Amino acid sequence: MRVVDLIERKRDGGQLTGDEIRTLIDAYTRDAVPDYQMAALLMAIFLRGMDADELAAWTDAMLRSGEVLDFSDIPGAKVDKHSTGGVGDKISLPLAPLVAACGVRVPMVSGRGLGHTGGTLDKLESIPGFSTRLPVERFREMVATLGISLIGQTEEIAPADRRLYALRDVTGTVPSIPLIASSIMSKKLAEGIDALVLDVKVGSGAFMRTVPEARRLAETMVAIGNGMGKKVVALLTDMSQPLGRTVGNALEVRESIEVLRGGGPADIRALTLALAEEMLRLGGADPAEARRALDDGRGLARFRQVVEAQGGDPRTVDDPDRLPRAAHVTPFAAPRDGYVTAIDARAVGVGAMCLGAGRARKEDAIAPGVGLVLEKRVGDRVARGEPLLFVHHDGVGLDACHARLSDAFLIGDEAPAPLPLVLERVE
Amino acid sequence: MRVVDLIERKRDGGQLTGDEIRTLIDAYTRDAVPDYQMAALLMAIFLRGMDADELAAWTDAMLRSGEVLDFSDIPGAKVDKHSTGGVGDKISLPLAPLVAACGVRVPMVSGRGLGHTGGTLDKLESIPGFSTRLPVERFREMVATLGISLIGQTEEIAPADRRLYALRDVTGTVPSIPLIASSIMSKKLAEGIDALVLDVKVGSGAFMRTVPEARRLAETMVAIGNGMGKKVVALLTDMSQPLGRTVGNALEVRESIEVLRGGGPADIRALTLALAEEMLRLGGADPAEARRALDDGRGLARFRQVVEAQGGDPRTVDDPDRLPRAAHVTPFAAPRDGYVTAIDARAVGVGAMCLGAGRARKEDAIAPGVGLVLEKRVGDRVARGEPLLFVHHDGVGLDACHARLSDAFLIGDEAPAPLPLVLERVE
Repeated sequence: MRVVDLIERKRDGGQLTGDEIRTLIDAYTRDAVPDYQMAALLMAIFLRGMDADELAAWTDAMLRSGEVLDFSDIPGAKVDKHSTGGVGDKISLPLAPLVAACGVRVPMVSGRGLGHTGGTLDKLESIPGFSTRLPVERFREMVATLGISLIGQTEEIAPADRRLYALRDVTGTVPSIPLIASSIMSKKLAEGIDALVLDVKVGSGAFMRTVPEARRLAETMVAIGNGMGKKVVALLTDMSQPLGRTVGNALEVRESIEVLRGGGPADIRALTLALAEEMLRLGGADPAEARRALDDGRGLARFRQVVEAQGGDPRTVDDPDRLPRAAHVTPFAAPRDGYVTAIDARAVGVGAMCLGAGRARKEDAIAPGVGLVLEKRVGDRVARGEPLLFVHHDGVGLDACHARLSDAFLIGDEAPAPLPLVLERVE
Repeated sequence: MRVVDLIERKRDGGQLTGDEIRTLIDAYTRDAVPDYQMAALLMAIFLRGMDADELAAWTDAMLRSGEVLDFSDIPGAKVDKHSTGGVGDKISLPLAPLVAACGVRVPMVSGRGLGHTGGTLDKLESIPGFSTRLPVERFREMVATLGISLIGQTEEIAPADRRLYALRDVTGTVPSIPLIASSIMSKKLAEGIDALVLDVKVGSGAFMRTVPEARRLAETMVAIGNGMGKKVVALLTDMSQPLGRTVGNALEVRESIEVLRGGGPADIRALTLALAEEMLRLGGADPAEARRALDDGRGLARFRQVVEAQGGDPRTVDDPDRLPRAAHVTPFAAPRDGYVTAIDARAVGVGAMCLGAGRARKEDAIAPGVGLVLEKRVGDRVARGEPLLFVHHDGVGLDACHARLSDAFLIGDEAPAPLPLVLERVE
């Protein structure tokens, strides 16, 4: 097999065989194929696509490039959730313990934030002491006993995907539906789960800006999962404004605890329940149990247990003031009277990143206490000079944040139509 | 300027500015842009194309990446010829001295063979002692005094093109009309010529298999040249069978000398005259002079002078038996009676390469005496067992050569229509 022959065939709109794809991904992982050849192939795939057979082989090859977890000896269904990434998306924090409390096991492997999007790992690590780097055996033991563990992707899971993602990032080949779908599914299916619920974000704060492209991504991922014998459901959900009222790590943990206490913003509560119901259904449990476990505090109790089991300070769950806090809080005022008609979620995410809540580059450090707390969301009435949000900062990046926020809120004279939260369901 | 932004813009069908292209090519030549980013961009260019402005900037940037020769102090027109490459294409050997003998200066910079195509440098170097590596000052001096010099591309001319070509070769991005056109024109226009005649090959032995794609390449190169103030004419010529009767370095020198003596195969003589007339016309001389200089031996005399001036043994010109010869000559017989209706020029070229007449890889050595001498060409009648060609070999690669030749000749019952040699003229 000559790599250049594969590049030329894909370039001309042809198809690669499963054997060719497996040999190629294996060779690339072993440094036997240079980055420049893979870069040319990725661009050809970007512009020519991959069909269902190629996608299945590509995903399978990435999945098998490293360790594949096997939880088949642990009884009961193992179900995970994956979000394609948004601003203020802390849903995993209330969701995972809630589902575990209802008897469906959640071996959750999450990622870090980059650019305008946050990451579940960064949020969890804002809890003092919380460790997301557990040995696989400890992860397995927690899933067996507590029904839940929350860790980061290890070096051993899908190394081919990690290398390919880094290359895509610098060669303009990230936003390709087959490449995104196979990247997500290879990591998730290496986790040893039986079923997966996908939260595909749509809107200004998401990678998919429109419903048709989000639907295509959802359908592609569902097809890959089904082809590998896994139950997969995807919800297309709104990301045209930040989720909830907080953007920033400890601030989002605090909001997640509010939701587990039965309060919190309506959209966080509703999306947590919608995704929990899907996970319970795929796991063979009663979907109605999700609401009961949220209302009677079982979800909160399970969250406290996870925090404690992973080395975090469980007192933060009862007293969120123990979470890291920013040094300063300053208001960001509305420039005019009216109704908030739109919020540019990406601008809000980048604004929070400027304060240190997120990373411009992978190696950047996170300031756990900083972020934004929205006082007004789409549909809210606001008077000139009233705060649209509060900026929680440590004296770093305030001007850059303000510059990003200056055009982020659209204020009009009439109240906009309410935005639906769950737009479509794909299975 | 972020390279990834340029890749993304081209990927999405957008246009790069002249400044962006110049900065990019300059940075790539200085190793400040990695191969994997350039590979992704080349694939995007392959699939999205470049418009006239981009092509002009790309060519100009490659041309200026190294030394640009300037012969403006030498009186008279300086005209070169470039062939896109074929099998048995030794036209430069009789052509360049013939044009110089007619008073138009020919500062010719040629390349080496790769794959099924031969290279003028390898042919010249089969003349004992002949050197194609002259210092630029010696090249200039020969152009001023003898009106001709025949050298290889130096390290100093268009280094960006050399690096890009090596990358294209391993990333499936060679057969792109804008990339081919800018590569050829950047090298040729760095030679300090006033005008250029292009011989764009069409057919089984050429990179361009069809007239429409050859025409598009010709038009693209003529437009680039005109945009830079140079006179350029392109002839589309047949490469559906090998040119002349010989394929192999010393064998082709011998055939070239026959043509300069007024003999040789009709197609070599005709194409030499057709291209010479174009070069003389662009150089402001009388095109009819070409035939006279061929018939009265002035072309041959100038060839002898060039050979001597570049260190070659001039006695080979008078006595071609002094050229290197292969150790063995074996016939390759026709499998049936009939007419030769087609010859796969590429298969013949690869067959000769197997003997050592060409290179599978750049670093391969050339065996100067080996090659093929065709006894039958398209339209010729042949009896079963009669030789279609003779294989001149040194005991290496004979089986591989025969394997390539086995399907190279199509023999039918009826004589085919004669093939025109010059298919179109583009200016």
